[in-house]
Amino acid sequence: MKQSQLFTKTRKEAPTDEASKNAQLLIRAGYIHKVFAGGYTFLPLAVRVLDNIAAIIRDEMNAIGGQEMQSTALQSKEPWILTNRWDDDVVDNWFKTQLKNDTELGLAFTHEEPMALMMKNFISSYKDLPAYPYDIRSVFRNEARAKSGVMRGREFYWKALYSFSQNEEEHAVFYEKAAHAYTRIFERIGLGDTTYKTFASGGTFSKYSHEFQTICDSGEDTIYIDEKTGIAINKEVHNDEVLAELGIEKNTLIEKKAVEVGNIFSLADKFSEPIGLTYTSEQGKPQNVFMGSYGIGISRLMGVVVETMSDEKGIVWPEEISPFTIHLLTFGKNENIFREAENLYHDLKNAGIEVLFDDRDLGPGQKLNDADLMGMPYRVVVSEKSVENGGVEITKRDSGDVEYIDQNRVVAYFTEG
Amino acid sequence: MKQSQLFTKTRKEAPTDEASKNAQLLIRAGYIHKVFAGGYTFLPLAVRVLDNIAAIIRDEMNAIGGQEMQSTALQSKEPWILTNRWDDDVVDNWFKTQLKNDTELGLAFTHEEPMALMMKNFISSYKDLPAYPYDIRSVFRNEARAKSGVMRGREFYWKALYSFSQNEEEHAVFYEKAAHAYTRIFERIGLGDTTYKTFASGGTFSKYSHEFQTICDSGEDTIYIDEKTGIAINKEVHNDEVLAELGIEKNTLIEKKAVEVGNIFSLADKFSEPIGLTYTSEQGKPQNVFMGSYGIGISRLMGVVVETMSDEKGIVWPEEISPFTIHLLTFGKNENIFREAENLYHDLKNAGIEVLFDDRDLGPGQKLNDADLMGMPYRVVVSEKSVENGGVEITKRDSGDVEYIDQNRVVAYFTEG
Repeated sequence: MKQSQLFTKTRKEAPTDEASKNAQLLIRAGYIHKVFAGGYTFLPLAVRVLDNIAAIIRDEMNAIGGQEMQSTALQSKEPWILTNRWDDDVVDNWFKTQLKNDTELGLAFTHEEPMALMMKNFISSYKDLPAYPYDIRSVFRNEARAKSGVMRGREFYWKALYSFSQNEEEHAVFYEKAAHAYTRIFERIGLGDTTYKTFASGGTFSKYSHEFQTICDSGEDTIYIDEKTGIAINKEVHNDEVLAELGIEKNTLIEKKAVEVGNIFSLADKFSEPIGLTYTSEQGKPQNVFMGSYGIGISRLMGVVVETMSDEKGIVWPEEISPFTIHLLTFGKNENIFREAENLYHDLKNAGIEVLFDDRDLGPGQKLNDADLMGMPYRVVVSEKSVENGGVEITKRDSGDVEYIDQNRVVAYFTEG
Repeated sequence: MKQSQLFTKTRKEAPTDEASKNAQLLIRAGYIHKVFAGGYTFLPLAVRVLDNIAAIIRDEMNAIGGQEMQSTALQSKEPWILTNRWDDDVVDNWFKTQLKNDTELGLAFTHEEPMALMMKNFISSYKDLPAYPYDIRSVFRNEARAKSGVMRGREFYWKALYSFSQNEEEHAVFYEKAAHAYTRIFERIGLGDTTYKTFASGGTFSKYSHEFQTICDSGEDTIYIDEKTGIAINKEVHNDEVLAELGIEKNTLIEKKAVEVGNIFSLADKFSEPIGLTYTSEQGKPQNVFMGSYGIGISRLMGVVVETMSDEKGIVWPEEISPFTIHLLTFGKNENIFREAENLYHDLKNAGIEVLFDDRDLGPGQKLNDADLMGMPYRVVVSEKSVENGGVEITKRDSGDVEYIDQNRVVAYFTEG
């Protein structure tokens, strides 16, 4: 896309009311716009990042049998009353609203209850199990405070998969598959080295749940990492009993601040029992369906990448989720140089490479600053200086490494790896 | 996909509380699930239909310069107060909610106000215009009644584009482009022959707006069609003065019930003036930005297709929006036949064709009924009878035309058109 056409603009200063680095950088670079505290519009550049993250998640969820659907945002209260989660004293972050006839509705903060209720239409026999529906959509949490930018929004974009199994054995197999899929997702996004599968409190029905925690100085969680085994433990279960059980020595653990980017839960019949989601087993007996839930914060992941991978100049996107692979820049008034840049833009596009072409009538300083702020992994400059140096200048955003290569070899450089 | 894996099921009877044909058929065929009156979960088959419709719309919007973004569902009241649309006495279909500190928020029923407010960050000079941001997302309307299924949901999926232009001249060029794009969209979806660009009331700032109305017996609108010119007129502006202006004779008009599937509006400075969205013109003068808005109901379109193109057996999807191109069926206990069907399934998938393979252990009657109900454009049967007749049986869902062709020619049949 030509940058002159992009309706967003960069800005030098972050708004004074934004405390978090991720919101400051994403606003300055034209990725998000604040509507209210914790509510951000995703601008075209951010939609590209979120779509890229969602595509990776979708791919991995489909590979383990997930089926994408689209739950409603507005929720009827009936199933939430059955599980005792409708009351604001029990769940303190509901947004609620009502129909004209005063029927109360909730804005979904998660979907265990409506999913369990809906699945009563589709599950009656063991032959209908297992089932793995999932949503990729926005949900709503009425947080008391919203100071972490898109790392903790009041309206945020996530993936939530719910598993419906015959029993704990069938569930456990899928739970492990989901854990592996999560590991692959964070690797593909570029957070593999800093994200740990972390033992956390399991709630009522299982000893542990697992969180996926990414090391981040501004994170709200504290985890303890055993680097030898790769095991991490959330502070909430960091005690002698758990350490003994996991075979870990206290003095090898490193304490880190972290952000929870995903979690997986065994729910057993916590929701299926009160909602009456049962099936007839192979032996002809009525049984409660064994449930699990598996969440990943998509807009939070965008925030975590910005928070942990940016530098003093701006954002540094990993290639697989970057809005564009290449930021193509050209400088100066030389028409031949501009035409060369434009030709290269079309050649790269025709080769299927995503390119943002800064065709604006601005000086090199502003264009270079914008490129650093916006964070595409490769900056390609076509200028009189680059031609003198042998063609085009390719700079990697993360390392700063520079290469000059012949213009005719640029497409091959990007398509042949 | 294998139908044995699909977690949804068909059902013989529609729920007694659904009055509309579209909701009855979509529920029976496993496309939607009702959460509350006017609120429907879109199940995996419906997500495929909605994605297909959205892809066509996205393609046409991008082609005229649209840039996709993602507005929030929750809206701060400030810009709505400026335009006098916050009050429930003025706009009677708001859903509202509040933060913990009692700050009121609205659930977006449209986005003119937040878009105009946001664009103040990006528009200051004539050089920043025009701009065409658009959303594809769910919006919320607190309708007094909800009896039309997904044709009028309280939560529904739509596309809304907003245009920001320097003046009426610049706006008019885009308005015409958008109208042509809409015509192409309805043609591509399969509603070209029954959808009319219709003169409708323009509101405060323009003489007419244009609606795109699809002929539909259960539609809430009445339009008058002049078949010679292809012009249609909404009942609300059907009077002698308008007819004279458009050069149409009253007695040539045919009255039809119709559903509004899209609309395009010239908004002039109705929103930019109160919100203060101005720019400095080429002559250095401050000017109000000239706005337009362009909506299409995506989930409504799914409903209209079901409402107008189904028959007594079930849904009939046009090929370009169908969840799968082919419904592949196999009958009987003959293992060789089943293996042939399975091989064909893989061959078709490998050729890039979307196939739903009914691999369930059920009789021919139930499989054929389900195929008719679910509505894929081509039914392909591999059975002992089809083999006797020359290979596989291909039946077109719309015409009922049947062909028998050699199994080895099936992939070519679908890929070579």
